[in-house]
Amino acid sequence: MEQYDASKYEKPSVAVDLLVFTIEDRRLKLLMIEREEEPFCGMPALPGVFVRMDETLDETAERGIAEETGLSGIYFEQLYTFGDIHRDPRMRIISVAYMALVPVEKLAYKAGERVRTAYLEDVEDLLAGDKEIAFDHRKIIEYARWRLANKVEYTDIAFHLVGKLFTLPELQIVYEVLLGKELYKANFRKKMADLIEETEYMTSGEAHRPSRLYRRKES
Amino acid sequence: MEQYDASKYEKPSVAVDLLVFTIEDRRLKLLMIEREEEPFCGMPALPGVFVRMDETLDETAERGIAEETGLSGIYFEQLYTFGDIHRDPRMRIISVAYMALVPVEKLAYKAGERVRTAYLEDVEDLLAGDKEIAFDHRKIIEYARWRLANKVEYTDIAFHLVGKLFTLPELQIVYEVLLGKELYKANFRKKMADLIEETEYMTSGEAHRPSRLYRRKES
Repeated sequence: MEQYDASKYEKPSVAVDLLVFTIEDRRLKLLMIEREEEPFCGMPALPGVFVRMDETLDETAERGIAEETGLSGIYFEQLYTFGDIHRDPRMRIISVAYMALVPVEKLAYKAGERVRTAYLEDVEDLLAGDKEIAFDHRKIIEYARWRLANKVEYTDIAFHLVGKLFTLPELQIVYEVLLGKELYKANFRKKMADLIEETEYMTSGEAHRPSRLYRRKES
Repeated sequence: MEQYDASKYEKPSVAVDLLVFTIEDRRLKLLMIEREEEPFCGMPALPGVFVRMDETLDETAERGIAEETGLSGIYFEQLYTFGDIHRDPRMRIISVAYMALVPVEKLAYKAGERVRTAYLEDVEDLLAGDKEIAFDHRKIIEYARWRLANKVEYTDIAFHLVGKLFTLPELQIVYEVLLGKELYKANFRKKMADLIEETEYMTSGEAHRPSRLYRRKES
């Protein structure tokens, strides 16, 4: 590291932007806010928080998730750091993007301070249209969408989008939504055989007949 | 993003730390420097540069690679951002780590300013010992080593460690070194069949008999 006199140079600000994904009605949804001030007033944006000097990046992400959703202990991971010079027109802000995954049953979201509404946006609709999205958040969302599709192929990330107990059709929907394609039931079940195990429990309810509940195998 | 008065808060510094990997003598090597000032004076460290206000993170990485190796246009990608509060004892520095891959023939390295030596270190030796490494760079190197082994399985990242033309044994060595295990020649060639194609060229030289040279297929 070159010698550095901290007082001599202007520093960028560092923020954590949050991509809180869930699946609702067989669609991938993302927690968005509507900006209520300039720049990009009225546009959809990712929730974000500035990194405080006394917290790590993971701690900033946890705080942001708690502030936006009221939840703690949900799965999250660092996605990528975005550092284009003029990504925020006010000043240089480097954004460390974090991705969180949460089953929709668990997700209660609330408007944070300084924003009008926090709401779930359909990701395909959001990206398909030519709707403006604040800052470089379209790029961040596109990158996250690509990473999700990619990671579901070679990791067990999909399990963060179902509860501890789940039916096989529920799990298949998660895989299908993340991959963006339908899967053959028999192939899917074969592929999952090493990852999940039957429980003694069944779903209840009058609308459908009971289905077997599964859980992830301990690894 | 919450409202933010940039003048009110202390900001972290942001640096790019570089992991320049190559393969030499069938071993994975990493470009390291020896620190010549406190903290961690005399210890091995990753080369790093501070992010300037007028350059993107990728541009910082390119500049750092050029300063350390004299090379431009080599493959690099962002790895992960490390933000532990006390990772640098002097002040809060958030490090965006970048990983570069370069064939050893191309790599000329030179001592930067402010460091005594830049040299290639054997990665397994570096991580296996209890040798001290500056800052949190052991953690960064371990993460990069894991990612490389991981990415070689499902991407074509290995091709950045051979030249434009290569023999099949050269390519197999790269895969074996990154995966950390030997591969059966026949299986390896079968797996590569879709990715590479024969050229009309052969290796020359008196020590060995000529071998066919291959190149990556255009995708």
